[in-house]
Amino acid sequence: MDKRQEIEACSARISDYIEHTLIMESKHIENFLCNDLYFKCENFQKSGSFKMRGATNAILQLSETQRAKGVITHSSGNFAHALALAAQKLGVKCYIVMPHDAPYVKKNAVLINRGEVIECAPTMDSRERVCGQWMEETGATFIHPSNNRDVIIGQSTSAKELLAVHPDLDVIIVPVGGGGLLAGTILAAQVFGKEGIEVYAGEPLEADDAYQSLISGEITFNESTNTIADGLRTNLGDVNFPIIKEGVKGIVRVRENEIISAMRVIWERMKIIVEPSSAVALAVLIKERPLFEGKKVGIILSGGNVDLDRLPFDK
Amino acid sequence: MDKRQEIEACSARISDYIEHTLIMESKHIENFLCNDLYFKCENFQKSGSFKMRGATNAILQLSETQRAKGVITHSSGNFAHALALAAQKLGVKCYIVMPHDAPYVKKNAVLINRGEVIECAPTMDSRERVCGQWMEETGATFIHPSNNRDVIIGQSTSAKELLAVHPDLDVIIVPVGGGGLLAGTILAAQVFGKEGIEVYAGEPLEADDAYQSLISGEITFNESTNTIADGLRTNLGDVNFPIIKEGVKGIVRVRENEIISAMRVIWERMKIIVEPSSAVALAVLIKERPLFEGKKVGIILSGGNVDLDRLPFDK
Repeated sequence: MDKRQEIEACSARISDYIEHTLIMESKHIENFLCNDLYFKCENFQKSGSFKMRGATNAILQLSETQRAKGVITHSSGNFAHALALAAQKLGVKCYIVMPHDAPYVKKNAVLINRGEVIECAPTMDSRERVCGQWMEETGATFIHPSNNRDVIIGQSTSAKELLAVHPDLDVIIVPVGGGGLLAGTILAAQVFGKEGIEVYAGEPLEADDAYQSLISGEITFNESTNTIADGLRTNLGDVNFPIIKEGVKGIVRVRENEIISAMRVIWERMKIIVEPSSAVALAVLIKERPLFEGKKVGIILSGGNVDLDRLPFDK
Repeated sequence: MDKRQEIEACSARISDYIEHTLIMESKHIENFLCNDLYFKCENFQKSGSFKMRGATNAILQLSETQRAKGVITHSSGNFAHALALAAQKLGVKCYIVMPHDAPYVKKNAVLINRGEVIECAPTMDSRERVCGQWMEETGATFIHPSNNRDVIIGQSTSAKELLAVHPDLDVIIVPVGGGGLLAGTILAAQVFGKEGIEVYAGEPLEADDAYQSLISGEITFNESTNTIADGLRTNLGDVNFPIIKEGVKGIVRVRENEIISAMRVIWERMKIIVEPSSAVALAVLIKERPLFEGKKVGIILSGGNVDLDRLPFDK
């Protein structure tokens, strides 16, 4: 099966379980930036982020026997929420390994979708040990949040939908964290985009492992991840890195204040709620304006899960 | 010209200048309330509120001679913003009388649309005196924010668009402040709604002049307006009150905490930004749930202009 068939089959497979999200425009932001701009609103996706696409596809690709034993992942963010919701919809048991000190709101997002939260210590070691134990005990299949081909293909369907409506985009910009959305977007652009379409990624300067990986040619890890874009603190993996290395036009790093400013522009002008990770993509466009001048740009707004009690605006 | 013709002509007249706003649904809120629910998103309207509809219609109804001399209103809220933007689009001069202590963000919304801000003292007396002076000096036509037939007909087009897509609504709920949106919605429901469609209004308990007016049969004024729903502090007028008295099914008063809770539900679940005044309509549905059970309900989300630095969520 070639890439096109793979993505099209996935699109059909997950169609009934996901939202075919809205594409918004903003005259105000366009006028300011001198671009044609199209925002693919994954903040309106079920579970509040694009992760629902990959989670749903990954579960649907399992055999009956596998499904009967459930799925497991480690995440305290959007993938946990998405996998729990997708599993619930598909009648599959779902286990989420999460540090015991994860915020209550994160645990709750899993619990309300009837996922089971398995607590571990807040270390990589503990997480993998606990995850291994539970896989052994339950026989559940591990679904990695971003370094899994079925997840990547699932994430590609957002750009596919965007290109179906706007096939003449010159550029697509997405945020990069674990690399699933970026790799999926690259694959979709290669298949459904016009000749010469470019995919850029935005990354917080404070967690610039993908940028460093691209330079060094090897997967690099963050020493610290002190960024408000909590969805982008993770690192690339061996499944998505080759796709990214080959296909990304560039990774642009943005500062924390640039992320918050872009987030404010989206909230104030578009009247929609996006999380800081989503704002990173617009921050790239604002920062590197000359690079994109006069181009037709698609931006994937990756999600809208924020804690309203802890917003970065009030001073 | 009958009501139907009047509204249809208005709809055609303003069509190129306004946004035909999105109608959103929310499975989560529906499941919680056991309703079919349709949200008409005037928060996505140009200028950030439904007021753009009435402002545009009112200016378009002026003669060439009147337009040449400009328009004037007193408002420190959404109507000021809308009238300035509509006037700018139509090449008409616009004067806004505003108390000198109005927040900078309100003045700025007028200024960026090239409206002229005329400052007055923060009293009713000063406002009317200053407004009168400027009308005399400039010959500008006064456009009342809500008590003006052209404005009311303009506001009716939101419900008209909603009913064009969902003609079988049992109920429409809107917030009531000055009464323009409520009166317009009643007129649209009478013409485009099914037999027996009901229009309800929501009002803050802290500024319940419309509720009191309905009981007493005479326009009542607020003694205080200590509500977060800043768009709803105004009172009814002699043009819209007869329409409201005859056509509204009921006015439901909601408390401040109920407004904030409903606002939080919309922000968290629908990922869109609405102002407190908009949340009042959903607060009615939540508060009087049995009244609407099993009914197909339309809610007009009136606007999305909030100051992100002063949100009511963070504790």
